Amino acid sequence: MKKLFLMLLGFALAVQGLFAADTPSPVKYVFLFIGDGLSLPQRMMTEDYRQIVEGKGLLINSLETQGFSTTFAANQLITDSAASGTAIACGSKTNVGWLGLDAQGNRLESVAAVAKKNGRKVGILSSVSLDHATPAAFYAHNASRGNTYDIALEIFDSGFDLFAGGGFLNADGKNVADAKGNIFDIAKEKGWVVSRTKEEFNNLKPTDKPVLAITPRFSDGFSIPYSIDMNDDDLTLADFTAKAIELLDNDNGFFIMVEGGKIDWMCHANDAATTIHEVIGFDDAVKVAYDFAQKHPDETLIVITGDHETGGLTLGFSGTGYQSYLDRLQHQNISLINFQPIYQKVKDNKEASFDDVKPLVTQYFGLKFDGDDNDNMKLTEYEVEKLKEGFKRSRGEGDYSAAENKSILYGGYDPFLITLLHVLNNKAGIAWTSFAHTAMPVATSAYGKNAEIFGNMSDNTDISKRLKMMVTKLK
Amino acid sequence: MKKLFLMLLGFALAVQGLFAADTPSPVKYVFLFIGDGLSLPQRMMTEDYRQIVEGKGLLINSLETQGFSTTFAANQLITDSAASGTAIACGSKTNVGWLGLDAQGNRLESVAAVAKKNGRKVGILSSVSLDHATPAAFYAHNASRGNTYDIALEIFDSGFDLFAGGGFLNADGKNVADAKGNIFDIAKEKGWVVSRTKEEFNNLKPTDKPVLAITPRFSDGFSIPYSIDMNDDDLTLADFTAKAIELLDNDNGFFIMVEGGKIDWMCHANDAATTIHEVIGFDDAVKVAYDFAQKHPDETLIVITGDHETGGLTLGFSGTGYQSYLDRLQHQNISLINFQPIYQKVKDNKEASFDDVKPLVTQYFGLKFDGDDNDNMKLTEYEVEKLKEGFKRSRGEGDYSAAENKSILYGGYDPFLITLLHVLNNKAGIAWTSFAHTAMPVATSAYGKNAEIFGNMSDNTDISKRLKMMVTKLK
Repeated sequence: MKKLFLMLLGFALAVQGLFAADTPSPVKYVFLFIGDGLSLPQRMMTEDYRQIVEGKGLLINSLETQGFSTTFAANQLITDSAASGTAIACGSKTNVGWLGLDAQGNRLESVAAVAKKNGRKVGILSSVSLDHATPAAFYAHNASRGNTYDIALEIFDSGFDLFAGGGFLNADGKNVADAKGNIFDIAKEKGWVVSRTKEEFNNLKPTDKPVLAITPRFSDGFSIPYSIDMNDDDLTLADFTAKAIELLDNDNGFFIMVEGGKIDWMCHANDAATTIHEVIGFDDAVKVAYDFAQKHPDETLIVITGDHETGGLTLGFSGTGYQSYLDRLQHQNISLINFQPIYQKVKDNKEASFDDVKPLVTQYFGLKFDGDDNDNMKLTEYEVEKLKEGFKRSRGEGDYSAAENKSILYGGYDPFLITLLHVLNNKAGIAWTSFAHTAMPVATSAYGKNAEIFGNMSDNTDISKRLKMMVTKLK
Repeated sequence: MKKLFLMLLGFALAVQGLFAADTPSPVKYVFLFIGDGLSLPQRMMTEDYRQIVEGKGLLINSLETQGFSTTFAANQLITDSAASGTAIACGSKTNVGWLGLDAQGNRLESVAAVAKKNGRKVGILSSVSLDHATPAAFYAHNASRGNTYDIALEIFDSGFDLFAGGGFLNADGKNVADAKGNIFDIAKEKGWVVSRTKEEFNNLKPTDKPVLAITPRFSDGFSIPYSIDMNDDDLTLADFTAKAIELLDNDNGFFIMVEGGKIDWMCHANDAATTIHEVIGFDDAVKVAYDFAQKHPDETLIVITGDHETGGLTLGFSGTGYQSYLDRLQHQNISLINFQPIYQKVKDNKEASFDDVKPLVTQYFGLKFDGDDNDNMKLTEYEVEKLKEGFKRSRGEGDYSAAENKSILYGGYDPFLITLLHVLNNKAGIAWTSFAHTAMPVATSAYGKNAEIFGNMSDNTDISKRLKMMVTKLK
């Protein structure tokens, strides 16, 4: 029954997609921005927050063309980044976890590969590791996204000109039977220009050699740090986008894919403030392309989409009713990921009590236990009890009633950290229903030449189908 | 700060709105469908459910033009049906609770009034009472949506040709100091044709007299029954739409507004199955206009929008992860409203126990306490405990821990009924975060002449601004 539905829906949308995609003309400069986990709720939460706190909205929400894209996979309604990445990159539905193959296992060709075949330069950028599902969908072909070492090796078969952003999940090929060595070493052996410091990055110049440009500082082991955690020494997704343009601009044009990969991660963890800063960092990267487009009108197309919604994010909470207080999220100054080790010290200290957590909650999230009751960051009695319960459970001390379920309440995360984020988010009028992806469609936006055909309702596969017709040889 | 944000956002969108609405030509037949509480999650939940269960989707999702509309009120981010109804009807932001007045209290003119002034026939249809916020925004001017009797009296000043659907919240003017009598009596005295039975409805013929056509059977005291509860004796929103076309078709054209008003009510109560059937009933009404448009191509425009999102609905739940089981909602065969009195008998019976509720849960919602563990409608131990807890609390017997809050858990609703709906919805992979509205934008769709200008991102006020330019005199 589900299969039938997906077939029917796929057919209906394919018809619509073909209808809308009547022979578009080639475009010299094509940018595709993918926000992982970026759907309408994430975009509107960030829009509203930024309007309130900074007095301006997001560029991506202000572009002339706005539409929806459905995201379902070949085998289920809720997709993952592999199936959706393959749909966006290659124009075909596939099963969750699969990369660059259709649901029957046939090898697919991505829009990036088509662009390369037509003599364009190609860059694949991501804030997460370059062997992660979304970037991999543009160059790899593997029935398991988990085979990250094999996936990374396909970079060297791609013929693409630039890979930039995060590193590799398994650069050394640990536990891979026929591992061929460290990915960075292989790159150097094969004549790639490899940049791993800020100085090397700044010195990168246009070259005929392929380039591998990696963040000078890793977060989570292999990705660009979260925007909320960055310092001046870091390279942002916008910096990588600007460098890609500098390196790849040429008479035959280019195709550049830029993924904001960590929006998804913080939506999995229900961290609204970090999500907001990631979306702003993503928007800043789009701004670099937008500024380039101003200098190359009639030659540039920018498409922005998401691969799926993550977290079941909504812009309303039963406890705040008709009111929103998004400005309360501005007091959080650290990502969950960076806060985790700080909290862990207290959690692991058997002498420590809830009182030892309080100063951390105030310092990093702005929530106050004492002071003026009119201070809107002061925790209510109920909220304090929630935090205490979360702390107990985090230390394995708290009971669960028969009508409570640990996994439903906290996913695989620490009970205190999830409670802390929920208390803050709920105080701001924000709530979540899941630690996984959902079936919500995503917003797709476009600017520049041929932008208008990306409006209205379509399927994520239409993005690739349409772009492939535009990365052809220039006349 | 909030005011500044709303001004900035309003300005940005107004500029975009004007840009897109460059002098559209008049359209003879204009339909405006408003789903109260109908945003993207409601549309996609119904789409996915219907594809799975019936093998076909919604007409409104398949139309050629699809866009978003922001919904914020003049004084807060989360709007209500009065402020959003006024925005959609009159093209101006106003405060929540206000009808037909701008935020400074100035009287506004609705697109319906403009249509009437230009010699068109005008019909206002709703599945809820005709003095409710959404229909009232098209003819009334009152700083409180609660003044329903005074609002209803404005019907007789409107000059419109048809009011149809639900009845009146306060037809007799109870507790109104200078009440002028029963609204139906006044209508008859003023020469209106009043239909209150199915026979009278079927006999209605085009006439120069104004017509008041009311549902033959009330639900909730004054509205059309829920689609899920309807029988063959009822008149559907589609029936009312067909009759409106029959009565109002004329050489000078018409403007017909049709509200699906009860989607919102069941989203407030977090009743997903009843919501789905309401959205399908709404879609069926749009189908009547769509069929009419096939006979009058180049002369008909259909616009479909929502006034806000209700319930913080999402298409994913932490307990079901990446899986969706929307077909499980097909076993519910009654609205919360009709189930309430059935449950109330058990609740009020002091001799009754949880065992007495079980057969009702199975009969009306398809959830099973016994039988094969592979039956996907069989309740898990955890779900049974949830229901038991809700039942206890419903009878005032259950305790709440210090980390629990009754209002956050159940809103103003009965704890057992909300728990029952949440257990079923969660089992289907659906979840909610609020019993109020949220700040999510709505989807706006259009079909027919000038449809294209309703695509992309815009504000709810743009709908009225654009339509007012199209309900001018025909050349």
